[in-house]
Amino acid sequence: MRAVYFKSGEVELREIQEPSDEGVRVHVRSIGICGSDLRMLELKFPLKFVAGHEVAGVLDDGTPVAVEPMSPCNECVYCQSGDYNLCQRVAATTLGIGRNGCMADELHVPESSLVYLPSNVDVKDACLIEPLAVAVHGMRKAGLEPERRVAVIGGGTIGLCAVAVAGAHLATVGLSARYEHQTAAGRLLGAGGINGQYDLVVECTGAKDTMKEAIKLCQPKGKVLLLGTYWEGISFPQMAIMLKEIAILPSYMYSANGAARDFDIAATLLSRHPEIARALITHRYPLAEVKRAFAVARDRKAGAIKVVLEP
Amino acid sequence: MRAVYFKSGEVELREIQEPSDEGVRVHVRSIGICGSDLRMLELKFPLKFVAGHEVAGVLDDGTPVAVEPMSPCNECVYCQSGDYNLCQRVAATTLGIGRNGCMADELHVPESSLVYLPSNVDVKDACLIEPLAVAVHGMRKAGLEPERRVAVIGGGTIGLCAVAVAGAHLATVGLSARYEHQTAAGRLLGAGGINGQYDLVVECTGAKDTMKEAIKLCQPKGKVLLLGTYWEGISFPQMAIMLKEIAILPSYMYSANGAARDFDIAATLLSRHPEIARALITHRYPLAEVKRAFAVARDRKAGAIKVVLEP
Amino acid sequence: MRAVYFKSGEVELREIQEPSDEGVRVHVRSIGICGSDLRMLELKFPLKFVAGHEVAGVLDDGTPVAVEPMSPCNECVYCQSGDYNLCQRVAATTLGIGRNGCMADELHVPESSLVYLPSNVDVKDACLIEPLAVAVHGMRKAGLEPERRVAVIGGGTIGLCAVAVAGAHLATVGLSARYEHQTAAGRLLGAGGINGQYDLVVECTGAKDTMKEAIKLCQPKGKVLLLGTYWEGISFPQMAIMLKEIAILPSYMYSANGAARDFDIAATLLSRHPEIARALITHRYPLAEVKRAFAVARDRKAGAIKVVLEP
Amino acid sequence: MRAVYFKSGEVELREIQEPSDEGVRVHVRSIGICGSDLRMLELKFPLKFVAGHEVAGVLDDGTPVAVEPMSPCNECVYCQSGDYNLCQRVAATTLGIGRNGCMADELHVPESSLVYLPSNVDVKDACLIEPLAVAVHGMRKAGLEPERRVAVIGGGTIGLCAVAVAGAHLATVGLSARYEHQTAAGRLLGAGGINGQYDLVVECTGAKDTMKEAIKLCQPKGKVLLLGTYWEGISFPQMAIMLKEIAILPSYMYSANGAARDFDIAATLLSRHPEIARALITHRYPLAEVKRAFAVARDRKAGAIKVVLEP
Repeated sequence: MRAVYFKSGEVELREIQEPSDEGVRVHVRSIGICGSDLRMLELKFPLKFVAGHEVAGVLDDGTPVAVEPMSPCNECVYCQSGDYNLCQRVAATTLGIGRNGCMADELHVPESSLVYLPSNVDVKDACLIEPLAVAVHGMRKAGLEPERRVAVIGGGTIGLCAVAVAGAHLATVGLSARYEHQTAAGRLLGAGGINGQYDLVVECTGAKDTMKEAIKLCQPKGKVLLLGTYWEGISFPQMAIMLKEIAILPSYMYSANGAARDFDIAATLLSRHPEIARALITHRYPLAEVKRAFAVARDRKAGAIKVVLEP
Repeated sequence: MRAVYFKSGEVELREIQEPSDEGVRVHVRSIGICGSDLRMLELKFPLKFVAGHEVAGVLDDGTPVAVEPMSPCNECVYCQSGDYNLCQRVAATTLGIGRNGCMADELHVPESSLVYLPSNVDVKDACLIEPLAVAVHGMRKAGLEPERRVAVIGGGTIGLCAVAVAGAHLATVGLSARYEHQTAAGRLLGAGGINGQYDLVVECTGAKDTMKEAIKLCQPKGKVLLLGTYWEGISFPQMAIMLKEIAILPSYMYSANGAARDFDIAATLLSRHPEIARALITHRYPLAEVKRAFAVARDRKAGAIKVVLEP
Repeated sequence: MRAVYFKSGEVELREIQEPSDEGVRVHVRSIGICGSDLRMLELKFPLKFVAGHEVAGVLDDGTPVAVEPMSPCNECVYCQSGDYNLCQRVAATTLGIGRNGCMADELHVPESSLVYLPSNVDVKDACLIEPLAVAVHGMRKAGLEPERRVAVIGGGTIGLCAVAVAGAHLATVGLSARYEHQTAAGRLLGAGGINGQYDLVVECTGAKDTMKEAIKLCQPKGKVLLLGTYWEGISFPQMAIMLKEIAILPSYMYSANGAARDFDIAATLLSRHPEIARALITHRYPLAEVKRAFAVARDRKAGAIKVVLEP
Repeated sequence: MRAVYFKSGEVELREIQEPSDEGVRVHVRSIGICGSDLRMLELKFPLKFVAGHEVAGVLDDGTPVAVEPMSPCNECVYCQSGDYNLCQRVAATTLGIGRNGCMADELHVPESSLVYLPSNVDVKDACLIEPLAVAVHGMRKAGLEPERRVAVIGGGTIGLCAVAVAGAHLATVGLSARYEHQTAAGRLLGAGGINGQYDLVVECTGAKDTMKEAIKLCQPKGKVLLLGTYWEGISFPQMAIMLKEIAILPSYMYSANGAARDFDIAATLLSRHPEIARALITHRYPLAEVKRAFAVARDRKAGAIKVVLEP
């Protein structure tokens, strides 16, 4: 079968043997290219596994599923309380990081990682469930109550997922995005422009210089939720967060919320809000054109939000 | 088409005209007989609509769905904060109560009431999503945290749904049931017997005399969640709830939880825990045998838990 | 020294030997007559100890103090988490219930039970700290947030303390009282009349028939806090609490709240709000006139709210 | 009267006219020298008012009080919800910052700023209530529940106040201090050494380089409370706070908690825990020796924790 590797900063599509990994076989139907994939390429991060962690596909019998891309231990104190994103085993079992990922014709995953798609969700859109789950998790960690004002900084996939999830929490949402096509996508999901101060500010860019803006947009007693990945560290202007007593809340992946996983809720959102897939997926390429797909994904100015590969 | 009516305490299957109700047409595939249906028959409650509110079916194009059986206004202060079970419009729009219900070949419902089934859930089991949503809602209202001890009083459908939902919250669950087949079903869902005191006691019988047991099983600072319907009122022994400061928490139907409806989470549970359908559905009858189905449902000793009608 | 006993429904002032109880000696300066004292007399409750549990006085060196009238074990799971009102040892160590109470010239108490009075609080008013602590505890248990609407049912001491505490929580307060002098006292503490529905209803009468009013005054999603003692049990109209999902919250005595005891906060309130003592204490009698004091306290219509004994 | 000014980095004791400020006159009895006083001197911060904000004294009639050193507006949305530390008027009305401070023989303050001392608290210790209130506020903002593990970084006044307040919350406390006399003071307040990871880490140094240690000591899902003043900004190692989902909680001054001000609770703590004053106040000087007092306060190695001025 075919599989994508990152080598010395380049994307390679190789023909490899069928994997003998344990678990249920998933025939891949949609793969999302994530900002962290682009970043690992840029950093020439030495990755020995097949890349990719945003994925949906079908089982051998045709049943459509998405895949939660990690396998926590189910036994540690974090797993036992539902916070399995904090399990020590997560990093080593994450698709495309600690084991073979999903940018391939097939992958094998534990049955407990499957998320069975709602009947109106197209498997070709369902790779979006992963970034949506990131936003569901963060908003839950932030304890977002109904009818609040939420500002989202960053109009990429995570930012737009945050817009969608905040809207589902019955919030009024403002989006601060760099490019016009991002603002337009946000508008489709219900986001207006930035206007005044907010109960919750969701930082989704990972850039170092947006933290000041986040603090500025946040009202006293408010919260700043960090959904980006801050490769260069995190710094705040002391006076502002102190005088306004702004809580800074990092968020990492996804876990479980009472009876439901964040991933389950994300699947539900994609079912109830078909506009999410329409707003986010801007490009689709067959797996064979993976190099072109990455080139497009990298060029934000050209209009890409989520670029999807279809094996 | 065929439709079930309650008349003078009797169940009648009548041939009626296709309904001209507004909304999306659902071809009914499974209908649950609920304890409140039995109670309304017993009380000879004058009901002018088609009966029934636990339902799943398929759309015209075959897409499988369950149905949230009420239509809140979406505009009042409760709807705007997600608590739409408290909307004034609920009673008048509930299937089988304020408008034509689901015990029929077809029904029409607003598109917003649809719950698209996860791909591994059989539509013939999916009428269970309604009582599961009742338990999801109650456990959420009770703020059940992980790793708590939960006692469930009552081994009928709601009690067993409470067992399943508490288990999904990573609780240790004890079940107090009247009949052996209920205890066995509870065991299949992870419930042990009653042993000591509990953080949360879930009263699911609606009987007047179980409240004392509930308070007794509840530890100081604990909570008693009321999922039954208490036709004869609710009374507590004063000293016990006072000295133990036990909070009494009524719960009504289902609503929304941040980004997800209780109904969505219930559908997810049915997907992740196929044992729920196996444990709860004890009998299935074609719609034509509706009288026999009700007779069996009424006779708890004979082993019925959930009796399902299949048009 | 002199001490008050309850015998066969009658109040007796006896001359007894100085107590040899352990603890710090408190020279009593003010004693409140509580509704439960009146009730125990009425029920001819067989009480072998000196009566009374609302008290303030001075130490041998003249330092003014109030006394928290129970001695929890400090070791059980409830004591260790601050909820020492739930400690098994409370009943057996409560003044006037399980050991000699405060209606006397002197009493001895553990040093940990002392509450050192704020410098502007008159020791002759400070027996009010006990019923204020009851209201502080209840309002804390109810999680009263700022700027809510609170209705108080009952214009006796506990009801008026609830008014004062709710006002200190920045609530808008309505009072439903039986007598005009109670309403006037409530007005002095900032309470208006009853008007519409409330986020929190505080039931302070202990009467059986007010529960319906409490539920009616409570808005959907609201809470009913029980500060009365319900000798005849507690009953609710099922439909109303169910359809409105009203939480019923019993409250018992007082305990600790993070770094402070409810008793400490009650002392603080008496310091910051001198109008509380002015509004509540309607009569003062020397200890020698205890029989007359009880007679006045019993006759609510005649204008008594809190009757204070001064040894 | 005499009053202390900061001029060009030097402390000056001047003879000035009695102040004509509005409010109640307080005859100062104890003044604490705060780290921020030292810092303002060091930075040669141009301060036109009398210095100082930690103070206790007596009213004209001898009643002992402490003073909450700011005057919020009582009308804005923050004041109305009890969070008056976020009121816009705070900075301009803070003693020693925006109006004449307390390093003088007398000062005038609004009656609402008075905190009447508990009867066993010596007015000569009561200037400690201010830094204790800082710790009470922070611990409340952090939502510290009973029986948690708390690490405190920094053994100065704020750090030791945090130790005392965490202990009052029934926490197990570890202290990381630079000097042996600080560790000894912490031991007197119940703090052990640092050992393992903590639910809550309280950063009290304000130094830039301790943030890494704070994050390291904090367990996953834990919180870092910032009680220091971070003149050089705040930076975190991204990976650690992200992977452990550690919430960063700044805290500013003090406000109200339901029925009580943080300041009231701090006064209560000083009453219940006389060891706090013994552990913290290491030096006392008459106001005339203010220069020497500042010199000692500045020299941490020499054993000073809290240096108190007594006019």
